[in-house]
Amino acid sequence: METGEKKAIGAKNFLYPMPTTLVGADVNGKPNYLTVAFCGIVQASPPMIAVTLGKMHYTNEGIRENNCFSVNIPSRYMVEVTDYCGIVSGKKADKSGIFKTFYGKLEKAPMIRECPVNLECRLADTLDFGGTNEVFIGEIVESYAEDRYLCNGIPDIEKIEPIVFSMYDNNYWGIGEHLGRAWCVGKKFGENINDNRNENNS
Amino acid sequence: METGEKKAIGAKNFLYPMPTTLVGADVNGKPNYLTVAFCGIVQASPPMIAVTLGKMHYTNEGIRENNCFSVNIPSRYMVEVTDYCGIVSGKKADKSGIFKTFYGKLEKAPMIRECPVNLECRLADTLDFGGTNEVFIGEIVESYAEDRYLCNGIPDIEKIEPIVFSMYDNNYWGIGEHLGRAWCVGKKFGENINDNRNENNS
Repeated sequence: METGEKKAIGAKNFLYPMPTTLVGADVNGKPNYLTVAFCGIVQASPPMIAVTLGKMHYTNEGIRENNCFSVNIPSRYMVEVTDYCGIVSGKKADKSGIFKTFYGKLEKAPMIRECPVNLECRLADTLDFGGTNEVFIGEIVESYAEDRYLCNGIPDIEKIEPIVFSMYDNNYWGIGEHLGRAWCVGKKFGENINDNRNENNS
Repeated sequence: METGEKKAIGAKNFLYPMPTTLVGADVNGKPNYLTVAFCGIVQASPPMIAVTLGKMHYTNEGIRENNCFSVNIPSRYMVEVTDYCGIVSGKKADKSGIFKTFYGKLEKAPMIRECPVNLECRLADTLDFGGTNEVFIGEIVESYAEDRYLCNGIPDIEKIEPIVFSMYDNNYWGIGEHLGRAWCVGKKFGENINDNRNENNS
């Protein structure tokens, strides 16, 4: 692969792609949902997820109050309502009626029926790295989906049609074409490794 | 939006989409790269990223040794070599010659020239939630890209063509069509909020 001159472009969170999620919590007895892209898996087993929110958000109060929250995966058909939940704060507008809410095992982690996948999380830890955000670490106690989003019992990304976020230019994107099977397409590279090395060093 | 019956599908890390990254560290004096999907932003400012690795990985030793690492964003054209770095451990194979490596400010965080975007990270914290993984929290001290991947100084997802990972079915995907502008498409929903509410409750 041809390479050109690398330029320092500043210390920024240039991670591509980012997910687009809706984080849910009961705040003052009502479900509230916030759009969140700062989110990632932090443990395989037991399954744990990190959700990062600006310290000033309304949702944070509910997570603290009930020690649980949800991570909901919206589909591309929900892009308008998903963006709306990022524009309008629960402090100013009641977002409890926007979606059909359901509850699971934890009873206080509201989840969105319309979202193809829901992760129900028990708050395991809260981290503060001294800056603008706080990190809620959730242990996923259950996941939910309708049958139509599953393939062999696993949510299917082609059926979910989740939303990719690109932060610094503020754009939402869909999922594109299939690029290959993991733990598989790399074998081909391994078989030709010596040719590949020479090519890289040329 | 029509909703059907939700099914409990097990406590699993069903996050869609996940990123596909290559995490770099110098191990025993040589660059090593590992494919990582458990990765997310944990703070906006100062910019910090969480990278989660299985405890047994070779890369972890290098991160500990040098207190720094890199997160590299491969493009779809690198899907074979990216997968290869997830199949073969640095304990068994020398991966130092696969890519053209460069170094930045930290001097010991190897980065991949071929990757459109590189994040150079100082190790800020290491977390252990008692399970299979450990979490390296990196403060991003600099980011790098070639001009051809930038638009107004910001990496452009259409030029990068990053790889989306779907974990439980082991598939790589590209980025698809543009769905809308963030902080913008949601305004339309807000304007029609009363109609939308009625529709949801019908």
